[in-house]
Amino acid sequence: MIFREGDKVIVQIIKKRFLITLKPGAFLHTNKGYIRHDEIIGKKPGAVLQTSQGAPAWVFPPTLRDYIMKVQRQTNIIYPKDIAFIIAYTGIKCGYRVGEAGSGSGALTTALAYYVSPEGKVYSYEKREDLQKVAKSNVEKAGLSEFVEFKIGDVTQEVEEKELDVFILDIPTPWEAIDSIYKALKDGGFLVSYLPTIGQVEKTVLAMRNGGFASIESMEVLFRTWKVEKDATRPDFEMVGHTGFLIFSKKSEKIEIPD
Amino acid sequence: MIFREGDKVIVQIIKKRFLITLKPGAFLHTNKGYIRHDEIIGKKPGAVLQTSQGAPAWVFPPTLRDYIMKVQRQTNIIYPKDIAFIIAYTGIKCGYRVGEAGSGSGALTTALAYYVSPEGKVYSYEKREDLQKVAKSNVEKAGLSEFVEFKIGDVTQEVEEKELDVFILDIPTPWEAIDSIYKALKDGGFLVSYLPTIGQVEKTVLAMRNGGFASIESMEVLFRTWKVEKDATRPDFEMVGHTGFLIFSKKSEKIEIPD
Amino acid sequence: MIFREGDKVIVQIIKKRFLITLKPGAFLHTNKGYIRHDEIIGKKPGAVLQTSQGAPAWVFPPTLRDYIMKVQRQTNIIYPKDIAFIIAYTGIKCGYRVGEAGSGSGALTTALAYYVSPEGKVYSYEKREDLQKVAKSNVEKAGLSEFVEFKIGDVTQEVEEKELDVFILDIPTPWEAIDSIYKALKDGGFLVSYLPTIGQVEKTVLAMRNGGFASIESMEVLFRTWKVEKDATRPDFEMVGHTGFLIFSKKSEKIEIPD
Amino acid sequence: MIFREGDKVIVQIIKKRFLITLKPGAFLHTNKGYIRHDEIIGKKPGAVLQTSQGAPAWVFPPTLRDYIMKVQRQTNIIYPKDIAFIIAYTGIKCGYRVGEAGSGSGALTTALAYYVSPEGKVYSYEKREDLQKVAKSNVEKAGLSEFVEFKIGDVTQEVEEKELDVFILDIPTPWEAIDSIYKALKDGGFLVSYLPTIGQVEKTVLAMRNGGFASIESMEVLFRTWKVEKDATRPDFEMVGHTGFLIFSKKSEKIEIPD
Repeated sequence: MIFREGDKVIVQIIKKRFLITLKPGAFLHTNKGYIRHDEIIGKKPGAVLQTSQGAPAWVFPPTLRDYIMKVQRQTNIIYPKDIAFIIAYTGIKCGYRVGEAGSGSGALTTALAYYVSPEGKVYSYEKREDLQKVAKSNVEKAGLSEFVEFKIGDVTQEVEEKELDVFILDIPTPWEAIDSIYKALKDGGFLVSYLPTIGQVEKTVLAMRNGGFASIESMEVLFRTWKVEKDATRPDFEMVGHTGFLIFSKKSEKIEIPD
Repeated sequence: MIFREGDKVIVQIIKKRFLITLKPGAFLHTNKGYIRHDEIIGKKPGAVLQTSQGAPAWVFPPTLRDYIMKVQRQTNIIYPKDIAFIIAYTGIKCGYRVGEAGSGSGALTTALAYYVSPEGKVYSYEKREDLQKVAKSNVEKAGLSEFVEFKIGDVTQEVEEKELDVFILDIPTPWEAIDSIYKALKDGGFLVSYLPTIGQVEKTVLAMRNGGFASIESMEVLFRTWKVEKDATRPDFEMVGHTGFLIFSKKSEKIEIPD
Repeated sequence: MIFREGDKVIVQIIKKRFLITLKPGAFLHTNKGYIRHDEIIGKKPGAVLQTSQGAPAWVFPPTLRDYIMKVQRQTNIIYPKDIAFIIAYTGIKCGYRVGEAGSGSGALTTALAYYVSPEGKVYSYEKREDLQKVAKSNVEKAGLSEFVEFKIGDVTQEVEEKELDVFILDIPTPWEAIDSIYKALKDGGFLVSYLPTIGQVEKTVLAMRNGGFASIESMEVLFRTWKVEKDATRPDFEMVGHTGFLIFSKKSEKIEIPD
Repeated sequence: MIFREGDKVIVQIIKKRFLITLKPGAFLHTNKGYIRHDEIIGKKPGAVLQTSQGAPAWVFPPTLRDYIMKVQRQTNIIYPKDIAFIIAYTGIKCGYRVGEAGSGSGALTTALAYYVSPEGKVYSYEKREDLQKVAKSNVEKAGLSEFVEFKIGDVTQEVEEKELDVFILDIPTPWEAIDSIYKALKDGGFLVSYLPTIGQVEKTVLAMRNGGFASIESMEVLFRTWKVEKDATRPDFEMVGHTGFLIFSKKSEKIEIPD
């Protein structure tokens, strides 16, 4: 494979990553100097170039994680660490039919589309059409539009699909959507909720328990990067203390929950 | 969908999960009483049964994570939290060709096979045939054998495949395998290493840097579960303090690394 | 210094620590064999003995942390990691006058008495006299009784002392005690609350804000031990995921808090 | 107590804390407006003032932690979270005789002096006199100079004191100082080492084991602050991922360590 005009490319300079679309005559300007797109065209993935200031610059095809982190943001996004758990704990893969609300900036939408393709489908709900434009545009940049059906609607009122494998709620009041998601999921299907505050977690878990969901698990994912150098290896000083909490649950038979 | 004879089923009693294969006349015995398989046959996913002692028991189809956690173990396994990051950070999906060494107990093999299916392939290396039996058996239980080619060989000497998308090393001396993995990967392909000790991480990262790998990131994943109850929500007291460190890197052009 | 009859001694065998009082003719039985107290009498701190099975056993004077961890428990104790923050963030030291409720098992009482001695005082409240016996006995074992005044009373109703430097609440409903603690503290004095659930934290912080406390900080302390071996260093697999949350605040002028 | 000319005061505006010395006619300028020192003089701890822009400003006497965080820095300091563990795990208190190297910026020195006062002593070693000026000045600001003996010397060569209760090493090569610290400590006394990288930890622990130290424990302290608001409580997004590792050990009888 060789990079050509129109290809998306990640240019990595030290720890910074730039996502560009190759265009003859264009320049990538960085605080370590510039690189001409023409120098990248014709190169192989992993090739090393030099910026105008002599800094080494690696070129790679964008990965899923690059697309997620490089979405244009209008809202907080769900980060790769949390997306990793959503994908792996529910087993979302090729062929799955997955719902999500809201569309947000499309970071999670992009990841879901990536994993369900080429045979599955993502149904991404947002209340207002104008809020969905950024998500649409970000999914399109990742080349995954055909695997997403963007829908305008309020999932606390109705979800049109049936027999979905998984539904992911990234909305402030997931407890109001329990009933409509219940109807939209297949038996045993996953309802996942992503929430910033712990009070929301408590409300949501209690609503899940009373709304026919079982196997409920609440968690938070922390990760820490390390700086590795000969005889000087240590954790990085900076770390993200919090993004959001994750709740996983499965649609099940409704039973009476004693108080 | 309805559970039938021969189906794999997860029976969940409080927080415990039992993986069984339905067989008329058989019993599942637990410390909360027994359940007859015949009661499960004909039920839908999410149905609630009662054990002989009256405890509620939910029945669900096994998920990927269940297969991983329920593998018969002959070695330490790579846990779902770390597998989640491997899958999401490399973007392993349907159609990918992925190598791994060693086969271990087949926990990671199962996850890789699940995600690359139905069009991709996992090449799982182990040095000795007798050590690979458990991994083979575990992958077979998950119904994923057709997506794995089990191979006997020493990856520090040679990997037969070319143009692989990703290679994952879960061996004690990954630094000895850098050259052979380099040859087996496509340009820009991912080399991932999973290691229990920090000294191994340092050795491996230095070998990667000198062996043509770039975009190297070292990290550890921690997660904490929460016990959610009305007005009594708190983190669980127990937590896993460590499983292993993860290193991600990409095959790139070999350059001189100044000291 | 030499260990004599009647001295408290910590006998450390591998990672286990035994707290004994030296008595001629007595034995310490462990799963690595026994040691006769007579062997310890006359030895110096740091001396190495052997159990009857040949395991090395170190003898040390008990430290504050040993007394805390070895208290006889009738309730959950506050752990050294949290006590460390309480001591260091409030600056509790020689001469301080510190209140606490409840007495619990006396683990925190022991630490407070240790740090305020020889010139300060700890006032330890408990509602019922029978519940305070264990705490009294544990403080006595640590030889710190003269620095503690054990009191029977309900701190949500009244605290008899005035001008206290610090008050620490380890009770389920600290928000009910805000007013009485306010009266008992000196201007600028610290009110610390230790709580297992996050809902309690929220209630308490809001009550502090409305009750004349400022400089409020809520936090949780995590620590991870490492297993250090040549070329095999790694974090320990086990870790405590949660003990309690800590809230620090300072008595200040009462002002109107806008909603 | 009332604030007077010459007193040290912490002015807290939202989460920011300013350490000032009261001087008639002087101003504290902040990005929320200014406060005249004269407004503070005569006020009680905990009083609330207003900046020129109307922001509430609380005034408190500085605590130990304020002095630590406000030291003028010429080097990385040891943070309160790590100091908390050093104080509580070794039991450093009034009357203790404690050694330290190097003096650094005097953050730890200040804390040690605070806790050993009024009867104990801190011996603070630094190789070069010019490097010790900042530490001296910071300890003086905290009013604790009389409890510290600043010394010029290389502790890998010699420590002049004997029978010290605790010695704390914050130097890059603690393994070179094991022998001299051994001679300076009392039997059973604590040697503590604070180190940024894990390779240093491994070297130091191995040297301690071979140099007559036992009861060795290595750990790292993490803490996470929470933002508490009605129905909106969550962990803070930012968190410190690493400061340093702590090793605790006790002087003991020298024995042969089998490989």
